[in-house]
Amino acid sequence: MSLSPLDSPLWSGLFGDPDLSAMLGDEALLAAMVRVEVALAQACAQVGIVPAEAAREMATALADYRPDPAALAEGAARDGVAVPALLADLRARLSSEASQALHWGATSQDIVDSATALVVSEALALFDRRLVTLGRRLGALAEAEADTVMAARTRSQIGLPTTFGALLAVWGQPVLDARDRLAMLKPAVARLSLHGAVGSDAALGDRAAAVRETMGATLGLTVEDLASHARRERIVDLGAQSTALCGSLGKIGLDVVTLTQSGIAEVKIAGGGSSTMPHKSNPVAAEALVSLARHCAHLQGSLFESALHGQFRDGAAWALEWMSLRPILVATGAALRLAQQMLDGLEADAGQMRANLDAAGFGPYAERAIFTLAETIPRDAAKTAVRDALATPDPHRALLAAHPELESRALTDPLAAAGQAPKLARAFAQRCKLECGDKT
Amino acid sequence: MSLSPLDSPLWSGLFGDPDLSAMLGDEALLAAMVRVEVALAQACAQVGIVPAEAAREMATALADYRPDPAALAEGAARDGVAVPALLADLRARLSSEASQALHWGATSQDIVDSATALVVSEALALFDRRLVTLGRRLGALAEAEADTVMAARTRSQIGLPTTFGALLAVWGQPVLDARDRLAMLKPAVARLSLHGAVGSDAALGDRAAAVRETMGATLGLTVEDLASHARRERIVDLGAQSTALCGSLGKIGLDVVTLTQSGIAEVKIAGGGSSTMPHKSNPVAAEALVSLARHCAHLQGSLFESALHGQFRDGAAWALEWMSLRPILVATGAALRLAQQMLDGLEADAGQMRANLDAAGFGPYAERAIFTLAETIPRDAAKTAVRDALATPDPHRALLAAHPELESRALTDPLAAAGQAPKLARAFAQRCKLECGDKT
Amino acid sequence: MSLSPLDSPLWSGLFGDPDLSAMLGDEALLAAMVRVEVALAQACAQVGIVPAEAAREMATALADYRPDPAALAEGAARDGVAVPALLADLRARLSSEASQALHWGATSQDIVDSATALVVSEALALFDRRLVTLGRRLGALAEAEADTVMAARTRSQIGLPTTFGALLAVWGQPVLDARDRLAMLKPAVARLSLHGAVGSDAALGDRAAAVRETMGATLGLTVEDLASHARRERIVDLGAQSTALCGSLGKIGLDVVTLTQSGIAEVKIAGGGSSTMPHKSNPVAAEALVSLARHCAHLQGSLFESALHGQFRDGAAWALEWMSLRPILVATGAALRLAQQMLDGLEADAGQMRANLDAAGFGPYAERAIFTLAETIPRDAAKTAVRDALATPDPHRALLAAHPELESRALTDPLAAAGQAPKLARAFAQRCKLECGDKT
Amino acid sequence: MSLSPLDSPLWSGLFGDPDLSAMLGDEALLAAMVRVEVALAQACAQVGIVPAEAAREMATALADYRPDPAALAEGAARDGVAVPALLADLRARLSSEASQALHWGATSQDIVDSATALVVSEALALFDRRLVTLGRRLGALAEAEADTVMAARTRSQIGLPTTFGALLAVWGQPVLDARDRLAMLKPAVARLSLHGAVGSDAALGDRAAAVRETMGATLGLTVEDLASHARRERIVDLGAQSTALCGSLGKIGLDVVTLTQSGIAEVKIAGGGSSTMPHKSNPVAAEALVSLARHCAHLQGSLFESALHGQFRDGAAWALEWMSLRPILVATGAALRLAQQMLDGLEADAGQMRANLDAAGFGPYAERAIFTLAETIPRDAAKTAVRDALATPDPHRALLAAHPELESRALTDPLAAAGQAPKLARAFAQRCKLECGDKT
Repeated sequence: MSLSPLDSPLWSGLFGDPDLSAMLGDEALLAAMVRVEVALAQACAQVGIVPAEAAREMATALADYRPDPAALAEGAARDGVAVPALLADLRARLSSEASQALHWGATSQDIVDSATALVVSEALALFDRRLVTLGRRLGALAEAEADTVMAARTRSQIGLPTTFGALLAVWGQPVLDARDRLAMLKPAVARLSLHGAVGSDAALGDRAAAVRETMGATLGLTVEDLASHARRERIVDLGAQSTALCGSLGKIGLDVVTLTQSGIAEVKIAGGGSSTMPHKSNPVAAEALVSLARHCAHLQGSLFESALHGQFRDGAAWALEWMSLRPILVATGAALRLAQQMLDGLEADAGQMRANLDAAGFGPYAERAIFTLAETIPRDAAKTAVRDALATPDPHRALLAAHPELESRALTDPLAAAGQAPKLARAFAQRCKLECGDKT
Repeated sequence: MSLSPLDSPLWSGLFGDPDLSAMLGDEALLAAMVRVEVALAQACAQVGIVPAEAAREMATALADYRPDPAALAEGAARDGVAVPALLADLRARLSSEASQALHWGATSQDIVDSATALVVSEALALFDRRLVTLGRRLGALAEAEADTVMAARTRSQIGLPTTFGALLAVWGQPVLDARDRLAMLKPAVARLSLHGAVGSDAALGDRAAAVRETMGATLGLTVEDLASHARRERIVDLGAQSTALCGSLGKIGLDVVTLTQSGIAEVKIAGGGSSTMPHKSNPVAAEALVSLARHCAHLQGSLFESALHGQFRDGAAWALEWMSLRPILVATGAALRLAQQMLDGLEADAGQMRANLDAAGFGPYAERAIFTLAETIPRDAAKTAVRDALATPDPHRALLAAHPELESRALTDPLAAAGQAPKLARAFAQRCKLECGDKT
Repeated sequence: MSLSPLDSPLWSGLFGDPDLSAMLGDEALLAAMVRVEVALAQACAQVGIVPAEAAREMATALADYRPDPAALAEGAARDGVAVPALLADLRARLSSEASQALHWGATSQDIVDSATALVVSEALALFDRRLVTLGRRLGALAEAEADTVMAARTRSQIGLPTTFGALLAVWGQPVLDARDRLAMLKPAVARLSLHGAVGSDAALGDRAAAVRETMGATLGLTVEDLASHARRERIVDLGAQSTALCGSLGKIGLDVVTLTQSGIAEVKIAGGGSSTMPHKSNPVAAEALVSLARHCAHLQGSLFESALHGQFRDGAAWALEWMSLRPILVATGAALRLAQQMLDGLEADAGQMRANLDAAGFGPYAERAIFTLAETIPRDAAKTAVRDALATPDPHRALLAAHPELESRALTDPLAAAGQAPKLARAFAQRCKLECGDKT
Repeated sequence: MSLSPLDSPLWSGLFGDPDLSAMLGDEALLAAMVRVEVALAQACAQVGIVPAEAAREMATALADYRPDPAALAEGAARDGVAVPALLADLRARLSSEASQALHWGATSQDIVDSATALVVSEALALFDRRLVTLGRRLGALAEAEADTVMAARTRSQIGLPTTFGALLAVWGQPVLDARDRLAMLKPAVARLSLHGAVGSDAALGDRAAAVRETMGATLGLTVEDLASHARRERIVDLGAQSTALCGSLGKIGLDVVTLTQSGIAEVKIAGGGSSTMPHKSNPVAAEALVSLARHCAHLQGSLFESALHGQFRDGAAWALEWMSLRPILVATGAALRLAQQMLDGLEADAGQMRANLDAAGFGPYAERAIFTLAETIPRDAAKTAVRDALATPDPHRALLAAHPELESRALTDPLAAAGQAPKLARAFAQRCKLECGDKT
């Protein structure tokens, strides 16, 4: 009965991402909560707060436990958080001793936030792997297309010649940079929460820090003394960085939609069929990248508001996170997957690129003509000469007639007119190799 | 592997709504698509375009067909729309003759948009039923609490006395009005789409109008000649009205959070338990109403952008609708359900209301004192007198000392100070009876 | 020191709208507040609450008063609303008697909301005038281009032939419909607020209704007994309808950007110059329509949240309205102005439209070929025949070779292939004439 | 004729910020564009591209030039960017020689983006100064209130005792962290753009890098080879970090609204007056912090979409930045100013805090009682004992009657029950001193 294309069986191959859904879904999150509870009991045992035997039993008894979200629904609806119902379900599987060692000193939010940190860490690692693969593909394409001449469109009009490799560099730099930004962000979000009901370590007292140290080491999460219960700007930032990445991938999608358009057709990707028009090939993956990016921009707005988290813990603001964070991460994962798939199958049509540039006539060389002329005559005279030429049916011929000295300057050599574009493409390809390796 | 609390088994009882998920989920939408295809074949048969036998076979053969979203996922991912894969699945169940009568003259978007119209109609009918029940409850409460004195808070500070019934009227009028607005909107969204690949009736030609008439009558949808493929403002409006309703219910939730706060405690609702603090009762449903309303405000932004639907059909803009419209409707349905449940269990604590008002001292009567005094002395003198009194430890006594003529005026009678509040409450209750009936 | 392109002198001709800024700006809003105060005093005088002489003096003394926003800034910052400072400024211009008759029974929100109703009414009237002019232009264009053949693009690929007139009808229907929707909305937002501090008529008591009647008649605003202070869904709806209109205009802009693109160039609009490329002509107005529509989608999200208006009046939620409503209205006004200007100068290039369609070869006629063949052979055989033909270098010739009976069917006559497009265009043009008149 | 409270004279003291408006307004941005043009000419002169004399003349002649936004409006509307009109205005002030040296090798976007980098750098420096001052105040408050007992509210209900200092630490940590995040971000946004029409250094060729180096040094901006024209994620991130900070400040505002509420009244801030209720004191600054934070969440959504920046430069996406970035920065600046002003005047009422806690009875000590009991009896027995006690009229007495050994444990000593709260407050105060200095 799924409704959101980000997470429905029907759309799993387009707007969704089964890997990320498996990592971040309610089942996974609940399972991570159990891991947190077990690690808490073990840490408490180590510090001497609960019996070691209780912690051991818990680890064993819960090793194969798989929480059933539907069975916890009633409790979740009653309490506004799934933890009390989950604890009851766990206690039913434990001896009285182990049962009493459970959830010592924690509040529901500790468990949910720590579990979120665990699943988010996995998602970030997956993002990184996908970014590496994507960087490799973009680098290989940029190298291969470094000298492939195309018309650079600005404000939807053909500006000057450039090369497709330079566009690939523009697409790719944010992809490489995203790795750094997500890596910098990770310690702040892969963070343990264990601070008790109101974030004051009231139950664990001065042993809280030791418990946190032990748990953090077990779970691979960073620790700190002050609770994050009510300061959510780091979760907000995770969503923002993810949304920004989705936006960078959406830009690639938007460009591919333009470049695959009928009448432009400079690149080809695997296309989708129509139910009634046999000749069509729709740029499905490219469109989906655009949709995902725009949708995330709105989901992230919801996450930003969760920063207005009242007092020491706030049920309404917290729920806004639940509604937005994981969908944003899945959308980003889906966008990474789609971008990879689209770029793996992308073929540039160098002939068509050149033909479209040529069809634009002398215009794309006008700026170059001005700057070339301006080497010998005043720049405004150069501008006038070029504007006059542009008003004739054959501007290039007209300009050469007026300024025969330009004959030797290869004004309309597109690669010469592309400036540093090939170099920029190769520099990007080089960076990809360094940072992502060159196994293709 | 659900991620969104609007549609996950874990959260079905809080942020989700099983009834609406069943009505609007992918299974239901795909089933509605099949209904549309069958109705199309029947209409084509009636107009003489396809054999009557083919249409009959189709109706019979597909009567028990239940589309399997997962089985269509590969096709949906490839084509960016589920229709081609669905058609292939249907054709596998049909004779060659019936198969050829399928999807005559339609484009994928006709089928999806018509199916959406069908499921949306059901949702609107459910909304209306829930609005009626909610109106009844609000009316009954408003009548019962018409004279229950409480402090009216403005900008979070106690202003003047009013009655709880007046607040219930403020909560309830938008609920009643929402019925009218949704009813007015319905014909525009419960609308058949059957206009062909680019909205020009190219395949059906001048028989298209007759086919639409017949289909519209069968399916209970309105018809029109111009395609809505690329003009989406009516779908956008559906989301907007739904979001506005969600906002009106969110306001009720926000107010209940305030009124149930520790230290205010003027109303009680069924509360949620804490995993570590046995004394707590959290206003779970009220918080959820706030979260749903805020989240919808962002989802609706995504839907607004789907109005930028390029050319004759636009894959990227259309997908934004899929990501936002049904989640908004489910959220609104959940909000209606939660509001009902919360209000069914809501108890006003008249004693505490009065105590809180009394604790505010003479302040809430200051405006009344000014206007009363201004009947006999200039208004600025009255203001000065009251301000002077407010600066003393016992303003009422101080004011009476200075103006003994006020003694008889019952300045601090809270019901008298509540103005027309009781009357407003009763007028609202009366409207509820008229429009929603009085069966409680 | 303006920052927002919606309201800065620099951008007044593009993203802004001087007419609407003058109607809706702080000066105009403050002036409307004064009108409301005067009307209140007059109504109170008529009902016998304040001396007639005081009301008369007020009307005379304040007739030429022009509020100075900067002078009220300190008070606005202190009180969170400009009314107390404005009242002080007014009182300084009045006799003690008149002064005391000022603001009788009103609260700040009554004044601000009523003043907003006044300026919004003017804006809606301006919208209507602009919609009429726009409808007229769209109708004239649709009639002129009813038979102008163009390629209909769906999902960015050429689908079938249609006519430009049919696209104009798709652009235009939401424009005509917007008039109806705004007209229906008007009474709900052009509404007087006069309900006192907490919406209970506490000061005016049972004379409040009479005062409202009189004021409403004077100011041209509708009245009702229950305060709207804390139920904001009608203001929210105004923004939503405005945003939806902005979206419909944004769709026109988006389409024009596509159609003016280098390599497509089917329509021409007045273009903007580049600082370095003399050959360029950027589709400035079309781009701006897109930007305004997308930006409004976000501003409207902020307005939706203002529906979560706490208790009887809420300073934080109310301010969200101030931040979003008027900017949305100005953006919509600017979009109407830009759309008019763009469409007034728009020229369709029928030759280029035809050339682009022809360049797509036989594909756009494939569906037509299938349906034509299906008149005589089974539809799947027809599909196979067409698909086979599409795989050859000259599909049309291949198809005729296999099915010579098609020779006479004018398969590739684009106007014949455009179905009902010309008729749809003319029907729209007719509606425009009926509803907007035909003076061009 | 201002419309947006973020930037209107009327609201400059509340939602606006005159300092930031002066830094970021159109006048300042245009002036920064002139600085960029002059630095470009100087760098070109140094590299030998234009005559040194031309660059000198430009610097002198334009030293006192103040661009007039209104005079550039016509050109801005025509071109969709102000640069061509600005250049024309500059050329009118220059000799032909200097005129020709102007804007060498640059495109409009280079100038606008570099100028934005300049004004944004100033804004970031101002943010940092304000964050330091705010950190100092928060640290001083946290130290002073480290032991001030208050009820910690979670989900709007009183949870356990804590101290006000701990809440101040929760408010303050994100403020300190924001400094680090903005500092890390700065080099990426304080970045020169000079890459020519399509980002390929077409006009400057292999001298482009040298020109950038020189300009970067002059203007204090970082440089890089690849153009940022069409990769906007760093600008997007600036808005996101600013919005997140606004959210953290909004959380403070939200908490203050709760804590100043009638009936809670634990803190006092300077309040605003009502136009009709003399006794009221509205938490104006706190409400405004909430409004600004929520509004920014929506504005930032618009900025996120600007990341979908088509091809090499995109007029529609770029304008979304103009509509959102500077308003977000002003809103954040206003929020910093308001937070400072509010906290400077904030007074905690320790007596009221204690009274509210005491009014909650034994509940806030229930968890402590359980954990204390659980030292000697099984935890579920402890829970049962406490729950039983909570069901009696005097739970503390009942518990002591059942478990006299608790007598000595000071169960209801609020400071003891506050756990590590005082320590957390002092640790935060210490961090403030280290990072912000202790001059108050």
